[in-house]
Formats: sequence, C-alpha cells, structure tokens
Amino acid sequence: MGYRENPRPGGRSARVQAAVHQSVRDMLATMDRADVTIPLIAQRANVTPSTIYRRWGDLQALLADVAASHLRPEGEPASIGSAREDLAAWVEQYADEMASGLGRQMLRDVLAAADSANAEKCGTYMRCQLSVFIARAEACGEPFPTLTELMDHVISPIIYRILFDQAPDSDYVRGLVTKVMPESTART
Amino acid sequence: MGYRENPRPGGRSARVQAAVHQSVRDMLATMDRADVTIPLIAQRANVTPSTIYRRWGDLQALLADVAASHLRPEGEPASIGSAREDLAAWVEQYADEMASGLGRQMLRDVLAAADSANAEKCGTYMRCQLSVFIARAEACGEPFPTLTELMDHVISPIIYRILFDQAPDSDYVRGLVTKVMPESTART
Repeated sequence: MGYRENPRPGGRSARVQAAVHQSVRDMLATMDRADVTIPLIAQRANVTPSTIYRRWGDLQALLADVAASHLRPEGEPASIGSAREDLAAWVEQYADEMASGLGRQMLRDVLAAADSANAEKCGTYMRCQLSVFIARAEACGEPFPTLTELMDHVISPIIYRILFDQAPDSDYVRGLVTKVMPESTART
Repeated sequence: MGYRENPRPGGRSARVQAAVHQSVRDMLATMDRADVTIPLIAQRANVTPSTIYRRWGDLQALLADVAASHLRPEGEPASIGSAREDLAAWVEQYADEMASGLGRQMLRDVLAAADSANAEKCGTYMRCQLSVFIARAEACGEPFPTLTELMDHVISPIIYRILFDQAPDSDYVRGLVTKVMPESTART
C-alpha cells in the first residue's frame, strides 16, 4: 500500500514541479490568496503559464496538488513506547496540525478541487501512517484496533469536527483513541 | 438547538437572496462551473454585482451559501418504524445523496469557502436531524446512542469516506448503525 509521486526525481518534470510548488508556497505565505494567479506563479517559477495549464489544468487543481504534497508525511511516526502510546501521541499532534489555520487551508485546498485524486492521496497517506502502528503492535503481540476501526472511529471524527464544527480538544482526541482500543488495553 | 436563516422572510433582503440563489442554481445546472461569475449571476438575478459583493464577499462564499441552503433539511425524517429503523433508513439515503455528484459538489462548495460559517451550519443541520431520532427513541423508551456517538461513529466515517476515499456502500453504512447501537438492540 505504498504511495509514490509521479515525476521521476531529477527529471525536467520533477524540476518544474518543485519550482512551481515552491512558488505557490512562497506566494501563499506572503500574498492574499485571491491575488495568486497562474500567470504570477509561472513568472515566479520561471516557466510559461501554458506549462502550468497543461500539467495541472487550473489553479484549484494546482493548489490541491501543493496541499496534498504538504500533507504527505515526512517519515515514520516517532516510536516512544507501546504502539498504543505512539498512536495516541501521533494522533494528538495530527489533530493539532489539521485544526491550525494552515492545516484547515490545506484540507480546504485538497477538497476544493473538482478531481478527487489529491483527496484520495491524502486518505492513502493516512492509512499508510496508521499501518505503521498496526505493524509495531503486531510485532510485539500488542492487542490493537484494525485499520478500518482507526480510520472510522479516530481519524474520521477528528476531521469531521475540524471541517464542520469546532476544533476537537486533546481530551476528546485521547478519548477516541481509548475507546477504539481492544478491551484488554482500554484501561488508562 | 434550532437553526434559523438570516433574512426576514418577504423582506427585500430575502427576495434578493432568493433571486441570487436561484440564479446560481440555474447556472450551475446548465453551465460549466468555471464560467459562472458574479457579474453573470447579478445580471440573471436582476441585481447589481455590488449587491452581491457587499452581501457575500466573493464567489466562493456565495457558492458556499447556496450549497449550505441545498444541504438544509426540508423537514423531519420519515417515521417508518422504531427510531432505530428510522435512523438506518435515513442514514442510508443521506450517504447516497452525499456520495452523488451533486452531493459531493455541495460538500466541496461548503468546505472551499475561507469562512467556515456555512460548514458549521451544515454540522448544526445534521445534529438537529439526529436529535429527532433521539427524541423519538426517548419517547418510546427505546435504547439509543447519544448525539455525540451518532456524529462521531456514523456520520463522520461516512463523510470522511466520501471526501477522502471511495463512496461507502450500503452494507458498510448499515454496519456503522448496527455498531453504534446500545448492546441490547445491536442484534440484526
């Protein structure tokens, strides 16, 4: 269930993608979002606008691609104790990041695109990260929830609240993790 | 926990809102979304563009407002049997509607706006609808999940899958309802 990015590293395509993504990130950090346009991005990335239109289609699709790259995990989650402790710490940090202004903006950009490919990529990133905890638990014979249970009963409620309600607090997030654990480990 | 809409019915403000919303719906049904602009909407609704800018701010905010109105429930959920049966039927239909092309578009429009007011309104609509089932269960002494349990463990996983994964099928949706029911009623 690994995920891979499209362009061959080091190729022209990868260089264009890196330059365009970097321009978008720089511009979003310093300009009003409504003023970010494909011609300006192209100018800054030193490519032609038609290169961007050909590759991404429209601004919304480009923003979704940049946001999905941002949401791509940078490595394996930290191992600090049992798989359960690792998961609890990781989920709490994840909820904080997604509830921040930048996190919400990235979620919005991924979801606003007409094509759901980038949103699905983010779902895949999440399943890959959670699989790491499951593999660690399995290696130590630690009872642990399934991937579906974690997606449905920990990640989904966190994201729903961030999108449609107030940001979840850390007690709530910890409660979701406690509740999804198999009976024998559900004491806290 | 009732929800109310802003403009006084029958007032000028309500008439403008109705005309603008109707224009947006008509245009989205017949035109490419990228061609829908505030000047065209204004022309069709017979108002000035500045009326729209003043009231909604930008196109994304207007689309979010139209989408939230679309997602506003039209009445109480049907009563066909026990509260549990009512809930199961309603949730299945809700999941179908949200997973449809139009449903996804409405979710996207609500979430794409920089202001989360319309997204939160949709969360409130949902809690109001679910409260109806809870009240029915209470009236008959039927054991039933809490509002938080229904939001976290039925609605959230459905919406997460629609947004970040493949659309959930009806077996999956029924399974979520079965799982959240209190022990004594969880046989099906």
